[in-house]
Amino acid sequence: MGATDRTGVSRRRLLLGGAAAGAGAAVTLGAERAGLLPGSATEPAADTAGINGERIVPFHGAHQAGVTSAPGAYATYLAFDLLDSTDRERLRAWLRLLSDDAARITQGRGALADLEPELAVRPAGLTATFGLGREAVRRTGAEEPAWLGPLPAFPQIDALEDRWSDGDLVVLLHGDDPTAISHLARMLVRDSRAFATLRWRQSGFRRAYGSDAAGTTMRNLFGQVDGSTTPKPGSADFDAAVWAGDDSPAWLRGGTSLVLRRIAMDLEGWDEVGREGREHSVGRRLSDGAPLTGGTERDDVDLEATDASGFTVINPAAHVARSRVSDPAQGIVRIGFSYDDPVEEGALDAAGRPAVSNVGLLFGSWQRDVDAQYVPMQRRLAEADLLNTWTTPIGSGVWAIPPGCDEGGFVGETLFA
Amino acid sequence: MGATDRTGVSRRRLLLGGAAAGAGAAVTLGAERAGLLPGSATEPAADTAGINGERIVPFHGAHQAGVTSAPGAYATYLAFDLLDSTDRERLRAWLRLLSDDAARITQGRGALADLEPELAVRPAGLTATFGLGREAVRRTGAEEPAWLGPLPAFPQIDALEDRWSDGDLVVLLHGDDPTAISHLARMLVRDSRAFATLRWRQSGFRRAYGSDAAGTTMRNLFGQVDGSTTPKPGSADFDAAVWAGDDSPAWLRGGTSLVLRRIAMDLEGWDEVGREGREHSVGRRLSDGAPLTGGTERDDVDLEATDASGFTVINPAAHVARSRVSDPAQGIVRIGFSYDDPVEEGALDAAGRPAVSNVGLLFGSWQRDVDAQYVPMQRRLAEADLLNTWTTPIGSGVWAIPPGCDEGGFVGETLFA
Repeated sequence: MGATDRTGVSRRRLLLGGAAAGAGAAVTLGAERAGLLPGSATEPAADTAGINGERIVPFHGAHQAGVTSAPGAYATYLAFDLLDSTDRERLRAWLRLLSDDAARITQGRGALADLEPELAVRPAGLTATFGLGREAVRRTGAEEPAWLGPLPAFPQIDALEDRWSDGDLVVLLHGDDPTAISHLARMLVRDSRAFATLRWRQSGFRRAYGSDAAGTTMRNLFGQVDGSTTPKPGSADFDAAVWAGDDSPAWLRGGTSLVLRRIAMDLEGWDEVGREGREHSVGRRLSDGAPLTGGTERDDVDLEATDASGFTVINPAAHVARSRVSDPAQGIVRIGFSYDDPVEEGALDAAGRPAVSNVGLLFGSWQRDVDAQYVPMQRRLAEADLLNTWTTPIGSGVWAIPPGCDEGGFVGETLFA
Repeated sequence: MGATDRTGVSRRRLLLGGAAAGAGAAVTLGAERAGLLPGSATEPAADTAGINGERIVPFHGAHQAGVTSAPGAYATYLAFDLLDSTDRERLRAWLRLLSDDAARITQGRGALADLEPELAVRPAGLTATFGLGREAVRRTGAEEPAWLGPLPAFPQIDALEDRWSDGDLVVLLHGDDPTAISHLARMLVRDSRAFATLRWRQSGFRRAYGSDAAGTTMRNLFGQVDGSTTPKPGSADFDAAVWAGDDSPAWLRGGTSLVLRRIAMDLEGWDEVGREGREHSVGRRLSDGAPLTGGTERDDVDLEATDASGFTVINPAAHVARSRVSDPAQGIVRIGFSYDDPVEEGALDAAGRPAVSNVGLLFGSWQRDVDAQYVPMQRRLAEADLLNTWTTPIGSGVWAIPPGCDEGGFVGETLFA
């Protein structure tokens, strides 16, 4: 390829590469990587320069890379329960092993004793982010953040199932290639056998790499533009909302927290609502996500504006009205992925008929302090949010997300300082 | 964007666009499409020229587009059971409705009465392929191909489950964007309510768009290069293996058949096999898929070559030895997707431990005649294939795939001629 093509590729990456536009700097691998693979002398010499599969997000750094990079097209969450035998020292060994796997595989190399290193060579922006539940922090003896543990109950809306909730350790894998994610998930599960059992696994997706222009907000499976106001990694609002600071336990500084809610969406019920009703329930236009009070997607919602009859244009119970915070530092940063799983045997839909879909949103959020940021907003939404009619939280969990680590270190090492 | 960039994009599409390299000609939409969307006057005017999301595979033509285009990165299969009330005339109406939905949504427009047309605007090469099971053909009164019905039992290997098998009608959706597939699947299920019930739904993936150079053979989750010898759409070998001709019922000419096998893969057992054993069981190198007798991936396997001790280099029970056909017209064309689904409650792995993965291959194949092409090969594999140790067919189905249709027509219309 000539210089012109390389420039084209690079401009194209800027245009298309959602993750590359985030704060997690992306670099591509040189040909030297080939030498790391068993049998790689016979690897076909395809011209893969600039291909998205080769995009690498560095694992090491001050923060975990999955928080600082824009969400990939695909995500898998894994949650583990600790074995009784996993004491402080064994937990430390496990965390070191997990970081070692993730540091290798996200950089396009196989794990130690990886029998399928070829599945690692196209990471496509793969990241791994580790979080600890209350029991895991307790076993280290480190200070527990006050907010670490199950969320308060929201009885108006919750229908939580154990099999999608909690876990002593969580891993979020996201990137643009599902095969790469599947392989890393498998290596992490394999290397966890002596320390923990897999509690659950949840996967989701956004638009594929290359489907949309960079920076396009995702649409959920209700067809809504979803996440218009969430701050982008690297912005001042993001930093203010996300990073744990001096009022946090020392081991957590530069880290954050993750709330994950598995939210089932009743598409069959949603079918009975017209476009006007749908816009009304959210407070945004379906076509482009702009507030019903006008402007464009990123413009502020005007909750005071009234129509000719004197009613507010935006229903006080609309989702945008209930979820809004005036100070971005008190808000959350959302990371959402749609799920569309096989229908389970015997499952019924909201109307009691045999289910024809098993669809929803893996709603994730980063915030410094769950109690100060997530809980008040969720309380307002649980009390009144027109969208609640068609959405049901069926899974929930909270984890502390330690800061990143340098080469030779491991995520979670600050817990053992 | 200037002319240079457009050229770059176009060259890049040739390089990366697997589906565009197939026989299904891909075209992109002009801006006029915007006018088809409700509320589209407010659609943001992003520069999406050349973005893969806009890639459209024409729905109409002599053959169904999902057969003639290379597999997309994601696939969803849907299978339906006919209601008792779905007689010949109602079946005809349903097939017309399904084609209408697919013709619109694959071309980037919403379905009729589509409340989420915005989810249709990035088809990313989306195709829909329809197939009929024996009962559906019977209800039309048309001639049944002799091979249409369940495969013979392969008791050595089969552990088939009803919930992943059979169905009176099947739809295969494939394309590069999971949101687009999810939306079309939903519209098809919605519009089927009066005619049929959803029997099952299965989804899978290959490498993402942009991850690999065009024409790279997929790797399955065992890490194997999978499908090296399968003919490419548009080739003479493909045409000879796939298209039903004069010895088929008249309504099927220009169509083909689909066999779908859901093959569970025992990754935990596979873990205990070293790289040499893995290569031995398949007969190909893991690094690049070349036969163990040398050469490159697409070179012929030499089943006669012997080593210094006089043994054949390739074990007679290796997968390549058992699956090989000498005449490509007697072979099949494979279309495979990996699946990696949530672990089911209470599931056990092959060793009887709590399962940590629910992983495998959606093995699909196109062939003129199931009995003449698929069955003999499957019989050889069931009798002896070293890979059988780690693979278990848990779902199975056979469908007749009618030819394509012109604008104004519908897939399946030839059954009513």
